[in-house]
Amino acid sequence: MGEDALVARLVELVPRDSDPLAGPGDDCAVIDSGSGELLLLKTDAMVAGVHFLPETPAEAVGWKAVARVVSDFAAMGGKPRHFLVTLAVSAGTPLEWADGLYRGIGRCLRTHHSVLAGGETSRVPEGSAAVISISATGSVTRERLTLRSTAKPGDVLLVTGTMGGSLLTGKHLDFSPRLKEADWLVSNFKPTAMMDISDGLAKDLPRLALASGCGFVLDRASLPVTAGCDMAQALGDGEDFELLMSMEPAKQLDLLRAWQAAFPDVPLSVIGRMVGAGQGEQLSGGWDHFGGCP
Amino acid sequence: MGEDALVARLVELVPRDSDPLAGPGDDCAVIDSGSGELLLLKTDAMVAGVHFLPETPAEAVGWKAVARVVSDFAAMGGKPRHFLVTLAVSAGTPLEWADGLYRGIGRCLRTHHSVLAGGETSRVPEGSAAVISISATGSVTRERLTLRSTAKPGDVLLVTGTMGGSLLTGKHLDFSPRLKEADWLVSNFKPTAMMDISDGLAKDLPRLALASGCGFVLDRASLPVTAGCDMAQALGDGEDFELLMSMEPAKQLDLLRAWQAAFPDVPLSVIGRMVGAGQGEQLSGGWDHFGGCP
Repeated sequence: MGEDALVARLVELVPRDSDPLAGPGDDCAVIDSGSGELLLLKTDAMVAGVHFLPETPAEAVGWKAVARVVSDFAAMGGKPRHFLVTLAVSAGTPLEWADGLYRGIGRCLRTHHSVLAGGETSRVPEGSAAVISISATGSVTRERLTLRSTAKPGDVLLVTGTMGGSLLTGKHLDFSPRLKEADWLVSNFKPTAMMDISDGLAKDLPRLALASGCGFVLDRASLPVTAGCDMAQALGDGEDFELLMSMEPAKQLDLLRAWQAAFPDVPLSVIGRMVGAGQGEQLSGGWDHFGGCP
Repeated sequence: MGEDALVARLVELVPRDSDPLAGPGDDCAVIDSGSGELLLLKTDAMVAGVHFLPETPAEAVGWKAVARVVSDFAAMGGKPRHFLVTLAVSAGTPLEWADGLYRGIGRCLRTHHSVLAGGETSRVPEGSAAVISISATGSVTRERLTLRSTAKPGDVLLVTGTMGGSLLTGKHLDFSPRLKEADWLVSNFKPTAMMDISDGLAKDLPRLALASGCGFVLDRASLPVTAGCDMAQALGDGEDFELLMSMEPAKQLDLLRAWQAAFPDVPLSVIGRMVGAGQGEQLSGGWDHFGGCP
């Protein structure tokens, strides 16, 4: 059973909010607490031997752990606020490693104007993999909130940056979440839907389409493939941490022109379009914790 | 290095909120978002082989994972709201185990009028311990908020329930967090300070005293020791998940009388008093992930 099917099965066993936005399904949960801003909630874990290697510098692990979560807030049009850090490590873990991890966490929090609100340390049995679990709140105004479930047939599909090779190039460890790009987008050319690409376009584009009740057509020739990578890597590697969005086609030309002026170093590429449900193409592959990589 | 010293060292490496209540140090972080109610944040992890055994029924593990967090909200005078569940398990974990875990999580959420807002599943390498990390929001009004750092010299110290033997009796798996008792307390006899006892009175009472800038005197003869346990177990076993509180001495008699009428089945015991900083006694022991149990 793949990860999405497992999650869908498990969440059926627990009570959820009457507001579906306040439950699982998007990059973050969206809680309307009645005040001006909406509360965003996100949790994300990194496991030694799965998301990072024993030889990965601890500071890079800490940066990545926070940056992954910041990327999710960006994808909602929001901003990160308060972070909780859980560190589960064996008793023999060198103190220097924990120090390095928290230095990386601290650097990423500072860069994104966020703070530590709490956390926990726990022991794992000797020989067990270290787990770093990050939970965080974010905030977004109702006007800026951008879901993954609101794309419409006819919308064009765009991605920031390039796809593939995140592990090969080391980008997965030192990427900058697209927070200012997303902020600019929702201010100037609000996407009809948006999410971040964490498990590969092959996994995440079908998720956006399914959530929106649409199909999609991918223009492979226009896909911004990372130099040195092939199409399979661009679609399946994952950990790109780029933004995937849908946009009304009438805005496309103005957007591309304004984007180039605002972010001359960051590619923005039209990669396809949304079509009606049951139409378009299928994609398979991408990162799946339990289904395995193809 | 013990757990508290480790945490103190690590949090120095990261940015924190200008409001110390919104940072580490109490049962929950307290965020004042400017609306009527304060936002509470908590994260807590359970590790296979540390917090539960392979043969523990999965549903009991799920109940305990949520109940531990509910206990922290209770200790602040607050209520649990939205939960995020991270499950990191090896790919070979039986689906029935995950189902059972989420059934237990669901049962505890329903019991405490809370909901799942999201979460994550991740793989750990084969042979690594499963980790269940729970993060949650809670809410509390400003008037009801009860910290661990506001006890005063002269206050009496009280605990609910009995101390010790949580592992022996199985209480650690099926305890009911003291949510309604805490609710009643803050409504009728608001403690000057409160926290839940998760690592044993020997660990948690000094934490309350240190946070409050006080000393304490413990009246061992009055300690409500669980039947079949001795004093060392009552002080050091941990996972009692009872409330430890300080109270103005003038309220003591009225409180004890009213409590007995409200909760005839739950002992409430005066176990000592707060004294000035540098006075009173020292306690050592209790559960420590990294310092080890005495």
